[in-house]
Amino acid sequence: MTDPSPIQLAARVLAGLARVGGTLATAESLTGGQLAAAVTAVPGASAVYLGGVVSYATSVKTSVLRVPNALVAAYGVISPECALAMAQGVAALTGASYAVATTGVAGPDRQEGRPAGTVHVALLTPTGHRLLALHLGGDRAGVQESTCREALAALGGLLAERPAP
Amino acid sequence: MTDPSPIQLAARVLAGLARVGGTLATAESLTGGQLAAAVTAVPGASAVYLGGVVSYATSVKTSVLRVPNALVAAYGVISPECALAMAQGVAALTGASYAVATTGVAGPDRQEGRPAGTVHVALLTPTGHRLLALHLGGDRAGVQESTCREALAALGGLLAERPAP
Repeated sequence: MTDPSPIQLAARVLAGLARVGGTLATAESLTGGQLAAAVTAVPGASAVYLGGVVSYATSVKTSVLRVPNALVAAYGVISPECALAMAQGVAALTGASYAVATTGVAGPDRQEGRPAGTVHVALLTPTGHRLLALHLGGDRAGVQESTCREALAALGGLLAERPAP
Repeated sequence: MTDPSPIQLAARVLAGLARVGGTLATAESLTGGQLAAAVTAVPGASAVYLGGVVSYATSVKTSVLRVPNALVAAYGVISPECALAMAQGVAALTGASYAVATTGVAGPDRQEGRPAGTVHVALLTPTGHRLLALHLGGDRAGVQESTCREALAALGGLLAERPAP
């Protein structure tokens, strides 16, 4: 038995969103579009997925997603605070009821003094949020894919616990 | 000899941008993040890639990328006019000097009366723009990947023609 692929996990997330009547947006730094790509690889994604922002440069995090400059100065962009602000920013931009945000170090170089594989994920729901702090092994591609898998698995699990409206 | 992968084509684009001193942003509809993912799969992408918007829902094209509602009403979202407006929108949002935008029908269903494989790509440069109208075969995944490949190959070619500053 092999691990489910990001696309299989995304299909479970989309089914969960359809069941609870939610919509989804993504805000990505280190995954650089891979999370959105996994979601939109699933036929029918447009029924619940609104879109997302790839905020690779810090300037895009602050200008497009409205992550406060003071937050970046205080905590850095490799932080749970930044992940949550990114999720809140993309939910506000798109009007989605659920949002996923990723920030971290894909590598190979360290960033903000953190080693490759240091990752923060924020999941925003209509009633609250969850933060995941990950310390992943592997090369650049492995860190990016593991982040997508962990984020989608966590969101799928969280949706499975919610009652249908 | 096999076709170059989107990641190989992205590496050529990033090298071209570094040579001419340009920066890049992406605006994606049918490719849903795959274009950004190809670019950010290349180590060192952050030197020239600022970020992008996955404007999957029409509401995200108009609210985040500022594609005029009147343009959507007149031409639809599967149009060269929409592709160009998306590229202009993401360049304005991010401050990038080059932008690539994709819009079209990944399938399997038709959209706005157009069959799967109907795709428009806009390439925005500091001195003008190019529009590509594609009619691609293949399934959903094939249409998405072919769009990324054609867009990146065209941008790489265009950059290769430009003199270094």
